[in-house]
Amino acid sequence: MTLPVLPIALIQHAMSDDLEKNIETSCRMIAEARALGAKLIVLPELHRSPYFCKSQNPAFFEYAEPLRGPTFQALSKAASMHGVVLVGSIFEARQPGLASNTAIVIETNGELAGHYRKMHIPDDPGYNEKFYFSPGDLGFHPIDTSLGKLGVLVCWDQWFPEAARLMALAGAQVLIYPTAIGWDVADSAEEQQRQLDAWRIMHQSHAVANGLPVLACNRVGYEPDPNGNQHPAKFWGHSLVTGPQGEVLGEATEDEAIVVQDLDLNQTADVRRMWPFLRDRRIDAYDGLLSRSLCGEDE
Amino acid sequence: MTLPVLPIALIQHAMSDDLEKNIETSCRMIAEARALGAKLIVLPELHRSPYFCKSQNPAFFEYAEPLRGPTFQALSKAASMHGVVLVGSIFEARQPGLASNTAIVIETNGELAGHYRKMHIPDDPGYNEKFYFSPGDLGFHPIDTSLGKLGVLVCWDQWFPEAARLMALAGAQVLIYPTAIGWDVADSAEEQQRQLDAWRIMHQSHAVANGLPVLACNRVGYEPDPNGNQHPAKFWGHSLVTGPQGEVLGEATEDEAIVVQDLDLNQTADVRRMWPFLRDRRIDAYDGLLSRSLCGEDE
Repeated sequence: MTLPVLPIALIQHAMSDDLEKNIETSCRMIAEARALGAKLIVLPELHRSPYFCKSQNPAFFEYAEPLRGPTFQALSKAASMHGVVLVGSIFEARQPGLASNTAIVIETNGELAGHYRKMHIPDDPGYNEKFYFSPGDLGFHPIDTSLGKLGVLVCWDQWFPEAARLMALAGAQVLIYPTAIGWDVADSAEEQQRQLDAWRIMHQSHAVANGLPVLACNRVGYEPDPNGNQHPAKFWGHSLVTGPQGEVLGEATEDEAIVVQDLDLNQTADVRRMWPFLRDRRIDAYDGLLSRSLCGEDE
Repeated sequence: MTLPVLPIALIQHAMSDDLEKNIETSCRMIAEARALGAKLIVLPELHRSPYFCKSQNPAFFEYAEPLRGPTFQALSKAASMHGVVLVGSIFEARQPGLASNTAIVIETNGELAGHYRKMHIPDDPGYNEKFYFSPGDLGFHPIDTSLGKLGVLVCWDQWFPEAARLMALAGAQVLIYPTAIGWDVADSAEEQQRQLDAWRIMHQSHAVANGLPVLACNRVGYEPDPNGNQHPAKFWGHSLVTGPQGEVLGEATEDEAIVVQDLDLNQTADVRRMWPFLRDRRIDAYDGLLSRSLCGEDE
């Protein structure tokens, strides 16, 4: 089967405390991306609000919304108006005291094609996500759309080759990561560069190891920490498009941007003939991957 | 526990049809690396012979040798003479019709510290390894030495994040890959660059995902294909040392070289406090990693 070339766009912008304005910005940029030819358009993680996980504050649960809440409603309208597939991200309220960090995929007709709940949840200074989000309970399943099977993962998942592999094994044709990652402004320039490089390397490596294109869409802008500004963040942008050999096809800077790129999904079959890694996985010897630790007293 | 800084060296050289000369070259460069301060010294994959897997030729089984055969004997002498730990690589003859691609680790006293049999075996044009090597049957276990626990893997393993992860979970303090990888000289310059970049990215990604330094030691030189020269190879060198954030600490060119670098194994603990990926692995949701495929009629 010859698939058509798929024009994608990554939208990176800054978020303010004004939720409606954030959604308006996203929708304005979706229209711009469509005008540039994109048919699959990706937004950053938690694009309706500031990145509220810097500290633990129960008040921020007010940002949570149902699966088909205001973000879905606005994106549904944009998807059907422009005839595009959208990948968005919400703080999903499920019941009192239970919320998830959820990616939503919306079809060209405005319907929900599927959703993915972030499986790996970070918790480190400035990223207190375990306070807000229950670990995802839907597993790793690509979402079927009119444009292909989308392996949608979210931010912290990017550091886990296991997640990318499971999506690839399940037939994903492209891996997509909405993200919200930035620098601690107190870190040295060298440390900041190592972190950005490491982030790029991981996305490129998922492409190489699985023979798939990878899209990473990040937010930009400086966001103060409302809790005494202990952990202000400079979100680093650099939204990235790689081909199935990990080659960088498109990349943004630290500024607001729309990255538009044609993806040839047929390349996966060609690359995997040359590098048939899926053929050679030692599934008879991978049991240890289901263990937390294999050393010392843990063994 | 504060570990001392570990000075390592990667030795990359070209191989000829003269097996004794190849071993002599390795031993000469080991002495040079020791003089430069190295205590852990790594050789490329199958460093005693030309890369004979370009085609399927039963005659090349003459290159196979027992675990404690001539390569071990020569390296054992070098290890004890110089007081270094050596990582070598042999075509291991086990019984008639059964051979492995085996890494050997030799202690400072010349004893065999352990061996690892390459688990993932390639088979593509110019790399007919499935003809020569049975898939490794020892699993993924770091080898204990006086310098630390060495996560020794071999070449094709580098494309499998599973292998790196299993070594890390089992307590490896550094990942080490003897390799023999090169360009098909018929490929375009762009394709050659993508392949080299992909190779570097994978090694860097194992460092990032596992918070470990990674050493990759490759051969150099043009080797014709004895079988009608259908698949001559230009081995690309570029032996690589990365720190535990994937940062490149040292790298060779395409020429014969000794890469010497101090590794601070304490950095792993610091990096993993900042990026505690091992903490957050979703071992409850990784069962699919033990499957060959999770899509279509395979599911």
